[in-house]
Amino acid sequence: MNSYEQLCELHRKASVLASVQALLGWDQETYMPAGGASARSEQAAEMASLVHQRRTSKKLGDLLSACEAAMPDDACEARNIELMRRDYDRLTKLPDDLVSELARVGSKAQEAWKAARTADDFEGFRPWLEQMMSLSRRKAECYGVPDGGELYDALLDEYEPDARSADVQAVFEPLAEQLSTLVAELLDSPTQPSDAPNRTKVDPSAQHAFGQKLLAAMGFDLRTGRLDVTTHPFCEGVAPGDTRLTTRYADDNFMDAMYSTLHEMGHGLYEQGLPKAERQGQPLGDSVSLGIHESQSRLWENFVGRSPEFWHWAAPIAHSTLGEPIKQFSVHQLFGAANRIERSFVRVEADEATYNLHVMLRFELERAMLRGDLSIADLPAAWNERFEQLLGVNVPDNKRGCLQDVHWSFGLIGYFPTYTLGTLYAAQLWETAHSKFPDIDQQIARGEFAPLLGWLREGIHTQGRRWTAGELCERMTGRPLGPEPLMDYLRTKLRPLYGLSHSMA
Amino acid sequence: MNSYEQLCELHRKASVLASVQALLGWDQETYMPAGGASARSEQAAEMASLVHQRRTSKKLGDLLSACEAAMPDDACEARNIELMRRDYDRLTKLPDDLVSELARVGSKAQEAWKAARTADDFEGFRPWLEQMMSLSRRKAECYGVPDGGELYDALLDEYEPDARSADVQAVFEPLAEQLSTLVAELLDSPTQPSDAPNRTKVDPSAQHAFGQKLLAAMGFDLRTGRLDVTTHPFCEGVAPGDTRLTTRYADDNFMDAMYSTLHEMGHGLYEQGLPKAERQGQPLGDSVSLGIHESQSRLWENFVGRSPEFWHWAAPIAHSTLGEPIKQFSVHQLFGAANRIERSFVRVEADEATYNLHVMLRFELERAMLRGDLSIADLPAAWNERFEQLLGVNVPDNKRGCLQDVHWSFGLIGYFPTYTLGTLYAAQLWETAHSKFPDIDQQIARGEFAPLLGWLREGIHTQGRRWTAGELCERMTGRPLGPEPLMDYLRTKLRPLYGLSHSMA
Repeated sequence: MNSYEQLCELHRKASVLASVQALLGWDQETYMPAGGASARSEQAAEMASLVHQRRTSKKLGDLLSACEAAMPDDACEARNIELMRRDYDRLTKLPDDLVSELARVGSKAQEAWKAARTADDFEGFRPWLEQMMSLSRRKAECYGVPDGGELYDALLDEYEPDARSADVQAVFEPLAEQLSTLVAELLDSPTQPSDAPNRTKVDPSAQHAFGQKLLAAMGFDLRTGRLDVTTHPFCEGVAPGDTRLTTRYADDNFMDAMYSTLHEMGHGLYEQGLPKAERQGQPLGDSVSLGIHESQSRLWENFVGRSPEFWHWAAPIAHSTLGEPIKQFSVHQLFGAANRIERSFVRVEADEATYNLHVMLRFELERAMLRGDLSIADLPAAWNERFEQLLGVNVPDNKRGCLQDVHWSFGLIGYFPTYTLGTLYAAQLWETAHSKFPDIDQQIARGEFAPLLGWLREGIHTQGRRWTAGELCERMTGRPLGPEPLMDYLRTKLRPLYGLSHSMA
Repeated sequence: MNSYEQLCELHRKASVLASVQALLGWDQETYMPAGGASARSEQAAEMASLVHQRRTSKKLGDLLSACEAAMPDDACEARNIELMRRDYDRLTKLPDDLVSELARVGSKAQEAWKAARTADDFEGFRPWLEQMMSLSRRKAECYGVPDGGELYDALLDEYEPDARSADVQAVFEPLAEQLSTLVAELLDSPTQPSDAPNRTKVDPSAQHAFGQKLLAAMGFDLRTGRLDVTTHPFCEGVAPGDTRLTTRYADDNFMDAMYSTLHEMGHGLYEQGLPKAERQGQPLGDSVSLGIHESQSRLWENFVGRSPEFWHWAAPIAHSTLGEPIKQFSVHQLFGAANRIERSFVRVEADEATYNLHVMLRFELERAMLRGDLSIADLPAAWNERFEQLLGVNVPDNKRGCLQDVHWSFGLIGYFPTYTLGTLYAAQLWETAHSKFPDIDQQIARGEFAPLLGWLREGIHTQGRRWTAGELCERMTGRPLGPEPLMDYLRTKLRPLYGLSHSMA
């Protein structure tokens, strides 16, 4: 084997252990008995440390230098090496003890979060969040402040390479303003779609069957993937040929589970489309960024899944699968319920228009906590105050406030803004898809999802990390990322539904 | 830390990785999508190799020698060191490549077995079995023939330390004869219990609820354990605080699932009772042998679970949980159905009297295959011929013949005889329990399982590998293992049920 092949083999071997680590995480959220938590945190720490050792070995560094000394002509190989260097330099900045500490404390903090959320007990979670924030700060300091950025950007860069929080802030602020205006217009309108379909009892096992039917019809391969139940839905691309989605069922709100499933399916379709088997552990077998990952989940969940054409196709399946009480609702009623705008408290239940305001809040607060401008003890008050400014309602308890998300409990700081970046990418892809495939709406109404999926597979999924998020956006849509496609899309879909004219007031 | 403490810490760290490996195995049999099989075999091989490296490290060997040079006075510490040496010497005999090869091929062979069993395709499985048998032979040769034994005993010793196949054969042969006689008497009797309860449709979800109720009532802790569905039921003591049972549901035979669940529960109670958390990875935190493990599963499944007193307690629960059609069956009818003797083909569905004949068959055949006296190609014919001699019926297909068990597919050669040894230990423990607790039958009839469980916990579970199987048998029952308690128990229970007098003809 030449140096490049050896380098790829070391990456593959590290990735095999990382895939085991992924399974531990999946199991912890799905089937692990409560009593296994303490042993699990040891297992997670041990695996994290082994993966880290493999990814930062001197041998890997030496092979990398050897490859760089004689860069291959092949553009893919060269790109692989460039990204391997980037990852290696990033990882070698973290001491081994910090990596295993983050995994060990993170695993325990996650259990503490579960208990605290259930009991609405912020004080029970506070010491864990303090620990995780301080470990995250240490991590950011190890990475170092990137050019033209702040400490927070060292963490943001892990999820969205090359992004800077000041730039994100500059896009988010006007977006928040336009969204707040739109939300106010919609909620002031005398016409409001009914949420009756989501106040109708539907047996969880029927909901599960419905979800499975949607997955199969929309292109998610259930021979290489599955759907399970958890508290906080996620998608885990465990290994080549093994992509796991999770969702959760409430017996009086079937769309909550349904859209969680479609969201995770979007992530899962990306995972299943990556060239993982051929390029296991190589950057070119991996996803670009969380923003691009989220663009895939949002595209299928919202742009496809909340369209009137989708409901034209899905309503008969809902009628036959979800039982008698759902049969009373027409396509238009189901479409309406799927697009109700509400000033609600929980991000994962938020509608398309208010969702990005929830993200904005977290982005601001985590930035402030990391900087030390906001103490953890003051988090609930700060959360509630800013929430009222952005969404105009008072948070009733921490369970529906600052305790609602799992992310911070295992140190995911700098992760939240990628949700809104993803939505913006999705909007721009959706707009392009409509000019590329003029009959895409009719295809969706007939349940034909293959043309859209094929376009994403070819242009995004099979490319791995060949292109940066910005390059990919230009290649797919012909221009850089902007907020207009999202605002246009929301206004065009939502204003008529709320009895307002298409154009802005 | 002194040498002994360091030694224990190395054992603990190896055990953490082994617990991850255990989870991979559990997941493969329960939730892994089919497409994940190839990646899983890589993961399994990688983890097996890491565990093997840790358990055979030079550092561990050096610490062991240091401890042996100044053996501690404490009997537990001394026993721990003695057993660590035994395990170390055994493991260092296996080269690293053989260990990962066994795991890699074993994982693939297991998938091949699943497909072959479903399709009744012995030829599809044959090359895998040939590979596994040849790897097993290589393993046995690495271990070396133990004193006074044959090559097969090198493998048997892994599951039942110090056992010799010639001794096993000497116990099994007369047992088989007495069992065959008893079976013939019972089946010739004009009185036969009805199997009607097991020809009644029962919804799998009701069966699952019933199983969960039994587990909770009988002492299995569901906060540190769980029950899932698989093809071939097993119990996996994944980690401290994490013990997983599996079962399988047929909609027309609820006792099949129920007794699988009770069997695995017996293993699980042992796992939950071991001092694993305090002694993780130490021999004193581990189980004695597979025979002793099986004694626990058989005790709860058969001796407790098929007694008339058990059904006195369990029938009302079955009536209320399993639905209307089961309500028609009385305690006596349920007890009768649970004790029907049959010349059946599948070991895991076999009754108490014929079961040991199934084991005998496998013991003979695997010994012959390992010795090379029987070629794999001739296995189906040899199986069918010997099956007819032992059980008096013709095997209709390989699915119900030599393809029925998972064991050989992942190299478990020398494992089967421990099933019968376990039954013999269970019978002797059961006999002793009756003299120790004269009202044990009445306790069981009232659903009071704690006295029996407490006795097993104190004398067996909490002891780990403190004593050998033979010592434990003497300590618990006052005498060495013999076949009489099993034969007495079977005759006393079964002859009256079949309308025959208590004593032998």
